[in-house]
Amino acid sequence: MNDSCIFCKIVAGGIPSTKVYEDSDVLAFMDISPVTKGHTLVIPKAHHDPITRMPLPLLQRVISVVQRIAQAHVSGLKADGINITQANGEIAGQIVPHVHFHIVPRYKGDTHSWTAPQKKYDTDAESQQFADAIKKALSK
Amino acid sequence: MNDSCIFCKIVAGGIPSTKVYEDSDVLAFMDISPVTKGHTLVIPKAHHDPITRMPLPLLQRVISVVQRIAQAHVSGLKADGINITQANGEIAGQIVPHVHFHIVPRYKGDTHSWTAPQKKYDTDAESQQFADAIKKALSK
Repeated sequence: MNDSCIFCKIVAGGIPSTKVYEDSDVLAFMDISPVTKGHTLVIPKAHHDPITRMPLPLLQRVISVVQRIAQAHVSGLKADGINITQANGEIAGQIVPHVHFHIVPRYKGDTHSWTAPQKKYDTDAESQQFADAIKKALSK
Repeated sequence: MNDSCIFCKIVAGGIPSTKVYEDSDVLAFMDISPVTKGHTLVIPKAHHDPITRMPLPLLQRVISVVQRIAQAHVSGLKADGINITQANGEIAGQIVPHVHFHIVPRYKGDTHSWTAPQKKYDTDAESQQFADAIKKALSK
């Protein structure tokens, strides 16, 4: 537990939340500022951040609950689609520094729009340069 | 393999891609229209869509590669943050109907911004109603 972490306090019960799922390692609860109604957060109970430094077995537990919540949005909320997002770092828009997945049910006619303007690489070689840097890092 | 699926064709080699990681079940390759430079896609090689109907063990394999790519963005591309997104359904902005995770490296000063306006529930009771619908679906 991180004493300054809002999500750790939610796990411990010091801050109230509307829970939808809980097991020994994972908690799912309603986002109080939903992008759409039904917007749910899934977190590991233990304090981890960012996702790159989280133990893989726990991440795999978390993603299993993410999938179950998405299934429940489809069957229980009649969602027509689902956005799943997970941000790491202030530059990425992360507000609470405790790993969390957003599961956002989408409904036909909802007014939400995620603006993610896409660009192009200046050259094919530039794309390859980035790929090479990733591959080199993976091989370490 | 789904003969009409672009990502299945990339897996099979019929459409070229810049690959950064590949194993028996999972492929990671560069997005040709990157939100930021280094933007990588991670997909199961087998055709599955949406995430709600994907076998969990395979999803857990995929998320392990997502984590590794995010780690490589940090160590290899010197990313200052990471956005991970996964969309299901046209309403959610999904373009290729084959499960894929976007791993988007973020850099200080990059001009990207994800606009996700947040709302409030009309009442606490309304939030609870959505939570109850999710819990009921989870219990089935």
